[in-house]
Amino acid sequence: MAKEIERKFLIDLDKLGPLNDGTFIKQAYIATPDKTTVRLRLKGEDAYLTLKGANKGISRTEFEYAIPPEDAKAIMAELCTGPAIEKTRYLVEHVGHTWEVDIFYGDNDGLVVAEIELSSEDESFEKPDWVVKEVSGDPKYYNSSLLNTPFNQW
Amino acid sequence: MAKEIERKFLIDLDKLGPLNDGTFIKQAYIATPDKTTVRLRLKGEDAYLTLKGANKGISRTEFEYAIPPEDAKAIMAELCTGPAIEKTRYLVEHVGHTWEVDIFYGDNDGLVVAEIELSSEDESFEKPDWVVKEVSGDPKYYNSSLLNTPFNQW
Repeated sequence: MAKEIERKFLIDLDKLGPLNDGTFIKQAYIATPDKTTVRLRLKGEDAYLTLKGANKGISRTEFEYAIPPEDAKAIMAELCTGPAIEKTRYLVEHVGHTWEVDIFYGDNDGLVVAEIELSSEDESFEKPDWVVKEVSGDPKYYNSSLLNTPFNQW
Repeated sequence: MAKEIERKFLIDLDKLGPLNDGTFIKQAYIATPDKTTVRLRLKGEDAYLTLKGANKGISRTEFEYAIPPEDAKAIMAELCTGPAIEKTRYLVEHVGHTWEVDIFYGDNDGLVVAEIELSSEDESFEKPDWVVKEVSGDPKYYNSSLLNTPFNQW
């Protein structure tokens, strides 16, 4: 079990400049009627099954397990509803913190967000000049929301 | 990934006679709006996270992962809805097959079922004389159904 404490921002890709090699991520969800999330993720050569509770502010309970990629693919095909989210994740170091920059594809083409994981809700960090606006609390940026109401429908 | 092929029966406990040591099982579910199941199970000293697809006859796609028992307890407490199912499972050998005899507690007190796992849908097996009636196709005996409509409400 872990507490995931994350802040999410819109960014200016032009200001950020050239990116290193990214990791392709494909993720899909088993439908749930509430804010609990059951996520299957293919990330590079690896795969994960992740359970998350409802967001409480910027915190969320998270349980993540590595599973065989063939399992993840079969579960996506057989048990997940709706389309998958596809994005490439780039890691950007900035003053002692690692930012995850996600560039989305498909129906979310054009959407770019950056996330920073914190060890406590009040941990301080320096905001890079390529950060435009915080969207941590906004449900429409949840990856699970981007399935039903993708960026190209906003 | 595995295909779970199972037949389920009501039994006559008196005819079955004395049982060996059983294993206590507690299981709960993350709510889903369809026939997909996300199950957390504590079984003796172990714990499992299991995803299952909808039943197709007596077959069901199943993906099962061992997880730390502390995780399973925390997930049950934080992410599962409804009460847990509690039962003791006894393994009974009969002519080359292992039968799982489940004796339920709580709101399902009085319910006893026996399951046999098969390697194919048409695998033959000898029915013991303590078997009373097959209930393989009956949704009310699904463990996930026993949460919402337990045996004491039938």
